[in-house]
Amino acid sequence: MSFIEELKKRKSDVDEAITHMFQKEKAHPLWGHMAYYPEAGGKKLRPFLAMITAAAFGEDEDKAIPYGVAIELVHNFTLVHDDIMDKDEKRRGRKTLHKKIGEPRAINAGDGLFALAFKKLVEIDVEGETLRRLLDELSTSVVKVAEGQEEDISFEGSYEISEEDFIEMIEKKTSYLFRAATRGGAIIGGGDEKQVEEMGEYARKMGIAFQIQDDYLDLIGEEDKIGKDVGSDIKEGKRTLMVIKSLNELPSDDKERLIEILEEEENTDVEVREAIGLLEKAGAIEYSRELAEEYAQQAKEHLRLIPDGEHKDILEGLVDYIISRDK
Amino acid sequence: MSFIEELKKRKSDVDEAITHMFQKEKAHPLWGHMAYYPEAGGKKLRPFLAMITAAAFGEDEDKAIPYGVAIELVHNFTLVHDDIMDKDEKRRGRKTLHKKIGEPRAINAGDGLFALAFKKLVEIDVEGETLRRLLDELSTSVVKVAEGQEEDISFEGSYEISEEDFIEMIEKKTSYLFRAATRGGAIIGGGDEKQVEEMGEYARKMGIAFQIQDDYLDLIGEEDKIGKDVGSDIKEGKRTLMVIKSLNELPSDDKERLIEILEEEENTDVEVREAIGLLEKAGAIEYSRELAEEYAQQAKEHLRLIPDGEHKDILEGLVDYIISRDK
Repeated sequence: MSFIEELKKRKSDVDEAITHMFQKEKAHPLWGHMAYYPEAGGKKLRPFLAMITAAAFGEDEDKAIPYGVAIELVHNFTLVHDDIMDKDEKRRGRKTLHKKIGEPRAINAGDGLFALAFKKLVEIDVEGETLRRLLDELSTSVVKVAEGQEEDISFEGSYEISEEDFIEMIEKKTSYLFRAATRGGAIIGGGDEKQVEEMGEYARKMGIAFQIQDDYLDLIGEEDKIGKDVGSDIKEGKRTLMVIKSLNELPSDDKERLIEILEEEENTDVEVREAIGLLEKAGAIEYSRELAEEYAQQAKEHLRLIPDGEHKDILEGLVDYIISRDK
Repeated sequence: MSFIEELKKRKSDVDEAITHMFQKEKAHPLWGHMAYYPEAGGKKLRPFLAMITAAAFGEDEDKAIPYGVAIELVHNFTLVHDDIMDKDEKRRGRKTLHKKIGEPRAINAGDGLFALAFKKLVEIDVEGETLRRLLDELSTSVVKVAEGQEEDISFEGSYEISEEDFIEMIEKKTSYLFRAATRGGAIIGGGDEKQVEEMGEYARKMGIAFQIQDDYLDLIGEEDKIGKDVGSDIKEGKRTLMVIKSLNELPSDDKERLIEILEEEENTDVEVREAIGLLEKAGAIEYSRELAEEYAQQAKEHLRLIPDGEHKDILEGLVDYIISRDK
């Protein structure tokens, strides 16, 4: 089976669990709002990671589904709130939730999803003390995601961000949920301390590569694949590795022009292309591609404690997929 | 010891636990934002309830502190987000968090508090399977709080709300966290199913009385005690039991005038007094006082499974305090 087929197989199991969860309660309007993002698609990468990791340590992968669904719900709640904070209008090809139902309702629906995630943990078929560890993994990770979000907000309006601070921020915002998925999967699978640790490092590095690729796709992708406007990050003045690298590398004239475009409220397509030209001139696009590949390579090395075989292949395949995907 | 002294004694234990938690990490700006509400005061009623209930069933009350702190953090996260949704400017005599740091950061700080609440559960010194039950209690309650909030938002702009729907909404928004506190306290204290159930009903009814009193104080209280403008609910057009009752009881001329005042963007103090006059004319203020007292009485009856003694007295004293407090 190809990697994509492996991913799709689990995605349909996870989608079914999610649909089932929301169907029971959909009479209440809150539940309709909560279901809007989880049911709109998404690759369900986090549940996939939890399931494959549990299986890599010899456990039935289905046992990790409730934990995976919990992380997926957390991920979706962060999307709902991030879209409000970033004033984004489109997500997965549809209106963002707050554009559809207003900010107050959307803030609240995000909160509901968050609570539902922790309620989902209750169902995990493990010993109580193992559940305690999983609760610790997930809750600690979400605190880190919030720290990352605060850092991200603090970058707005700043043009002096070090690459190190930026990587730390995306580590928190993006890697921590991947990390919770693999660490939790390893715990459910009965992995020892060292194995849990290594699987966490695998996910941490993979998450960084994932985010760099995400930002790359925003510039280079096709609108109907990525589900939003190409170049939307430039239009929104978002700090990405490519932007930060360019601000640190470009001669001052170019740097000023880039800042000008990033700061403008409304950018024309010509300006977006000009900004992309400046990133290219700084070598930032190539640099970020190379860095993503380096993190991807390092991620794979952390799989060394997993015995060779089907699941290790899938986890390696996931890393390759992450940095070569077009959506 | 008087009831107030009992309350203050536990408040200082809980405050210490909270301060300690935030002190460790305050270097990160997120942690400063998260600490803003929990450290600003509040009566810490929910931890108090959990502690006294655990003690009523023979357990050391300190054992319930981490659970109580978790509920308190959840309560504070709901305040942060509610203040954003309601566009409130003052809370506990200070600027609301979003007025201080902006909406995006405040949404995120609320999320961080929420995550921290669930992280706190990990510390509870109970068997893993008991922890699972506590996780279920708290997460289920927060989903209910979100349902209540959605219902509350849906009431805005409506003048045809039944008393029944209104009570259901405040039950979810307010009672459910009190209920989680007493049910969890009973679980930690080793109470049986029936006792957990009865303690939940005690809190459910007490919570309704609490909310009715809260809305009453908004009209009748003193600004420096309640920490916000008197009559702010009228100015904001908020639906309270008194308003709903009046809309259902007043002759059509008066009803129209009341709606006019509630809908106006900026109300003068004269208009606020006029609105209060209309509520009085409808008998709604007296009615809501009586209903609060009825719920308070019913709440006390649910204490019948607790043996007579110190803790039962405190739980009865709490109900009396709830409906007679001036802040």
